[in-house]
This record gives sequence, C-alpha cells and structure tokens, in this order.
Amino acid sequence: MSLYHAFSPEDAIAYAKSITGFFAANALLACEEIGDGNLNLVFRISDPQQNRSLIIKQALPYAKVVGESWPLSLDRARIEREALEIQHQLCPELVPAIYGGDNELAITVMEDLSDYTILRQGLIDGNTYDNFAEHIGLFIATTLFYTSDLGMNQQDKKLRSARFANPDLCKITEDLIFEDPYRNADNNNFTEDIRSEAEKLWQDHALHLEVALLREKFLTHGEALLHGDLHTGSIFVTSDSTKVIDPEFAYYGPIGFDIGAVIANLLLNYAAQPGWCDNHDILQERRAWLLSTINGVWNHFEQNFRKLWDANGIDFMSKTPGYQDLYMRKILQDTIGFAGCKVIRRIVGLSHVADIDTIESELHRRQAKITALEIGKRLVKQGRMAASIAEVIEWAEAAAAKEGANV
Amino acid sequence: MSLYHAFSPEDAIAYAKSITGFFAANALLACEEIGDGNLNLVFRISDPQQNRSLIIKQALPYAKVVGESWPLSLDRARIEREALEIQHQLCPELVPAIYGGDNELAITVMEDLSDYTILRQGLIDGNTYDNFAEHIGLFIATTLFYTSDLGMNQQDKKLRSARFANPDLCKITEDLIFEDPYRNADNNNFTEDIRSEAEKLWQDHALHLEVALLREKFLTHGEALLHGDLHTGSIFVTSDSTKVIDPEFAYYGPIGFDIGAVIANLLLNYAAQPGWCDNHDILQERRAWLLSTINGVWNHFEQNFRKLWDANGIDFMSKTPGYQDLYMRKILQDTIGFAGCKVIRRIVGLSHVADIDTIESELHRRQAKITALEIGKRLVKQGRMAASIAEVIEWAEAAAAKEGANV
Repeated sequence: MSLYHAFSPEDAIAYAKSITGFFAANALLACEEIGDGNLNLVFRISDPQQNRSLIIKQALPYAKVVGESWPLSLDRARIEREALEIQHQLCPELVPAIYGGDNELAITVMEDLSDYTILRQGLIDGNTYDNFAEHIGLFIATTLFYTSDLGMNQQDKKLRSARFANPDLCKITEDLIFEDPYRNADNNNFTEDIRSEAEKLWQDHALHLEVALLREKFLTHGEALLHGDLHTGSIFVTSDSTKVIDPEFAYYGPIGFDIGAVIANLLLNYAAQPGWCDNHDILQERRAWLLSTINGVWNHFEQNFRKLWDANGIDFMSKTPGYQDLYMRKILQDTIGFAGCKVIRRIVGLSHVADIDTIESELHRRQAKITALEIGKRLVKQGRMAASIAEVIEWAEAAAAKEGANV
Repeated sequence: MSLYHAFSPEDAIAYAKSITGFFAANALLACEEIGDGNLNLVFRISDPQQNRSLIIKQALPYAKVVGESWPLSLDRARIEREALEIQHQLCPELVPAIYGGDNELAITVMEDLSDYTILRQGLIDGNTYDNFAEHIGLFIATTLFYTSDLGMNQQDKKLRSARFANPDLCKITEDLIFEDPYRNADNNNFTEDIRSEAEKLWQDHALHLEVALLREKFLTHGEALLHGDLHTGSIFVTSDSTKVIDPEFAYYGPIGFDIGAVIANLLLNYAAQPGWCDNHDILQERRAWLLSTINGVWNHFEQNFRKLWDANGIDFMSKTPGYQDLYMRKILQDTIGFAGCKVIRRIVGLSHVADIDTIESELHRRQAKITALEIGKRLVKQGRMAASIAEVIEWAEAAAAKEGANV
C-alpha cells in the first residue's frame, strides 16, 4: 500500500520540520501553496522570525491541464530530484540546493528562490538580463557534457540512462511537440483567427519530413541527460543570477533539444514584442537584445562545450581532428530544428506561452502568432542545412520585416 | 550470498531433470560440455534412448579470451535469455525455443541444435546456404522493426531499453571494434607481416573520423533491440533452416550494426577464399555466391522492413512521404560503415575469425588480411556517402582484383 497522499499545508509544515537542522525546533512556520497546480503542488515553508524558508514540491498523479484523465507517474519526482542533484553538483551556482526528498511521497525539498523572478515573466515585463546568456550557456554545456559519452564513464552513463527512462513525461513531449501540431488532433488548441495557418501545418509534407527526423532524434538519440523542458518558465533570474529548476522531463536525449528550448522561448517573446511595445525604437531595441541573447546562448554553449571537450574529454576517438567540428555542427542543426518545433507547438498545440496569449490587442496577438509560425517553420525546414546561429537571427529579422503595417 | 557456482556436468544433469516434462523421471541422461569456453559453459544433456536433448548455457563471470582479468557481469545471462525470448516470439522458426533459466545461476535452458552447423564453419567447409540470405534478412527486419519506435509502443520501448542497458558487453564492442584497432593498443593482435598495415590504421585520420561517427552511433542511437554480435559464429544453419543464437550483447543500438555484422563476416570469408580454393573457377564461383548472399541479406532485410513499416507502423509521423526512404538510406550507410569496422577489427584487433586464421599458406593468409583491410577501410570511409548495396559488391570485387599474382 503506497504512502502517497497529496500534502495539505499542515503536512508540508510537518515534513519541513523533519528536515534536520533547517528550522529551529520551536519555530513558528508559515506555509503557502504557490504552484500553478498543473502537475505539482509547491509549498513555501518559512520561519519569518529567522528569515529562513524552503520549498517542498510534490508531484500530483495526473496532469491537471487536461483534467485528471492524463495520469502521470509519481516516479517523475524521483527523476526530477536525481536530475537536480546531478545538475547542482555540476553547476552549484545555477541550480537550487536540494535538502531532501521522498520517493513514495513524490516530494523534493529544496532551496527557496522567492527573491527570483521567473524569466518568462521578467521578459514579459520588459526586463533585460545581461548575464543570462552566459549563465544558461554554461549550464547547458556543463550539464550535458558531463552526462554524455564525451565527459563521463560510458558504462556508468548506460546505467544512468536506464534510471532516467521517463516514459510518461517523454510521451507528453512526443505527442504535444512532435505530432499533434501536424495533424488535426483533439489536443490542439488555437484561436479561429489562425485556423488557416494551423491547417497549412497539417498539409505541409516538407515540414512533416523534418519533424519526423527530429522526432526520431528525440526518440532514439541518447546523447546526454537533458533537462527536457528548458523553457523560460523553468528558469529563475535576478539581475545577476540564474537558477534552473523543474527537470522532471529529464531523460537521455539529443543535446540540441535543451538549447532549442531556450532559443524557442526567446523567439516566442521576440514574436510577441509588438504586443508589448508601443514605441518603435523600444521595440527594435528589445528585439535586438533578444536576438543578441539568442546568439549569446549558442555561443556561450559552444565555447564552454568545446573547452570542456578539449580539457576533460574521456573518449579517445572523439579527439580525432575534425570530429568536434562535425559534432558541433550537428548540435547546431538539431538545436535550430527543435527550436522551430517548440515555437510551432506553442501557437497551435495544447500548451501556449503567456508572452503571446496575454497580449491584449487581438490584432497584435494574431500577428505575434503569425510571426512565430513563420519563424518556427523556417527553423524546422532549414535547420538541417544550417551552418551558423547567424542564420536564426537572420530568419527572425526577416519574419519581423514581413509583419503588417498594423503592428 | 549468491547461489552462483559454475556448473559441473552433474549439476547440469540435475538441473535438466528439474525442467518439468522434458525428460522422463527415470531417464539416464548423458552430458557433454561443448562450449568454446571463452565466456560461457555450454552443456548438452541428452536422453539417448528417447532421442531427446537440450542445452544448458551458463555464463562465466569473466572473459577467458583475455584471462580471468576481464570480469563480465553475470547479468548478461538474463539479457541473453530475455533477448532470445523476444526474438523467438517474433521469429519462432529462426530462434531456438527457450525451456527455462535462472538469473542467479546465470543459466538458460534451450533447444538443442546439434543437427545444425555453425555458419562460419559451413562457409569454411565450402558449403552454400541458399536460403540463408532470406532467413537472416527476415530475422533482422522482424526483430529490429518490432523492437523499434516504428513497431512497438514507444513508452514500453523506453522501459525495455532500460532492461537491456548491458554496459559490460557494450564495453567489449566499444573497445575492440571502435577504438583499439585505431591506436597501438595492448589488446591488438596481429601478425608481424601486416604490422605496416596496422600502423597505417593508427595514422589514418580520415578513417578515424568515420569510426568516431560510427562509435557515436553505437554509443547513443537506441533504435532497436540489437542482437549485438551477429557474426557467422552466432548463426546455426542446415541446408534449409537458420537459427540465430547467443544474443548476450543485446542492447538498444543502431539497426545497421546487426546487418553490418552479417555482411562483415561474409566479406571476411570472401577475403579468405584464395586460401581455401585452388581452382580459379571454384574460387570465382564461391566469391560470386558470397557477394550475391550479401546483396540478398540487404535486400531481404530492406523489403521485409519496408513491408512491416507500411503494414504495421505505429508512428503517425513516420508515415510522412519520403521519410522511409531517408531512414532506409541511413540504415544502409550505417550498415556499410559498421561492416567495415567489423572487418578491420577481425584482422588487427583482439579477436580474429577462423575463416582467415586457419588458412594454411602464410602467403595466402597474409593476402586475405590485406584484402580484408582494403575492403574494410573502403566501407568505413565511403559508407557515409553510399546509396546502394551494389557499391559494397563493387568495392569487394575491386579489392579482389588488386590481389597479387601469388594468389
């Protein structure tokens, strides 16, 4: 009989007290549930007098976003905690500390980041984060290099890969990103004013071919332990710090998938800009910052990954002249293709982004979707031939240049 | 405390008697150990009066080929039995029946195939097997299709993949096939008369680059549950029947690896022919039969795989026009590259093939090695650009045409 039950605030406080040495024994603890409640409960437990706090995250046995009918394995809490522990060990500055957890209860106890802003909200609010590209580039390069066959014992990697099989969460990605947007699926979710655009996606066989190739990579290429859901809602920021959270989708997959997720979400914010900026100059400036951040994400990733490879690569054959260049080119192409898939699914698929959906003007909202689809399709279709991140910048600028006079 | 102990013949008989309903309770059983003893004990238990027999295969905790210093997980007995069960279910005519087994004792009890010949020996003896290409093409296509994301539930596949992580046995492949032949490794094993050829392999960076790419596929591309060691010593034949045994190297890897193994071992026999045939016409005829068999292996594989895909494919996106052709092309290229690696390693690496090593004439033996290396290098270097199995045939013929007048 499982011990699992969804925590009440009182349960969360009692559990927090059981974490040795964190709160004083006689502390008066407060608790608030701060999760968005789609997949998890998130309790913030605090001792206001000592100004100490922590987070207890508990997995729910279903995905609320589609009702209780989409059951999800509670084992994802173990996967998330184990991934966080690996990532924290590799990048202690960029991942919250883990204080404990319990597999049966599906909980993880971790550092409270209440001083941080969710990057997606920070971007919607018009903020800039000039260290973000450097931080995330370092995070991606470090966590992926040291969990790949290039940077860790190749036999241990196989055993680790087995611990992160994660079928339930991968299924969400496989359906929502790599299939539903390309057919008239029940789970799709788009406004009627872009129906013709959605229908074009269902008919576009050249697009489908590239998506099929990317889907195959997602299904079969176990290159590194991915975060697996690295959108701007999984990243906390301040002006000088970045923390990556929520790796419950972690599994061994293609390296470009994580980088693509970051870039896709920056591009979605890019597409949304006219909905947030009245002032043409400010709009141009924000868009330029977003594109420069995309450029920076890739370049910091690439520089760090190559540096780790040269200094700490464990694979004799991987030191063959020319191989690293081919490998980086492949990651770039994968990154661009995956970014495109992730942009497209946020417009016509089940789950959207606030960057676009909260734009007040219907006209601007529609234009943002059109621009995003324009960029997304180009990334998917041309990613396999791309040679440089500059092409992504160019395609984003070209899509913006096509926006109507009403924007 | 583990129950494991290496079986004596008496242990094997006692265990065989415990298999319900196979032997009569009062049967007088005979037992002989018929394994080559490198990695496993193989007992044949028979009741001569009833003309019934079975095989008990037990894994040893080390690889004897390099002394007891290379420990091997006994879990490979479970992996082998589970792989045999899956393969037997998919291809009952082409895989021995499994009667039982025990994970702690690392044993599998299975159908006796004493009426069969090991294909490698049959080929050395100058026999032809005209159904072999059709049988093995069907085996590879069926077992790989139905264990891949194309033909089985994609979530079950992830869990199955975790059960077949198989790090110990993969390590042997990674070292002996994808690394040692390309450096001056202690485990290499070649005769002095081809030292200059071996040294050329260590310096050939264009070759290393292709090997590095193939090694990466072996390490990261979990396409289907491979047999993992499908050389002609793992295949039993009669004039009209084929049985595939010994899948202890089974793991989720690139589909081309299994097909490449079959083709490589046919090519090694091809290279060895002048050592076995005095008569030019017979030599030409045997070589033509071997090349036609290689052609047949690929074509039967491809036809069956495409047929299964069209009829029983479970993946919506995989039905995109053009995708299957790209996929088959990739498998062909992988097949050729892997075949090349497997040819090369049998000449300079730790483990050789009897087809070549038992050639009596030193001159012919050396020439066979030179021809094999010539073919192997070309397969590795040009595989990534190949468009048809006909190219392999052509390269094999070209290598034969270069053989010296002394052959």
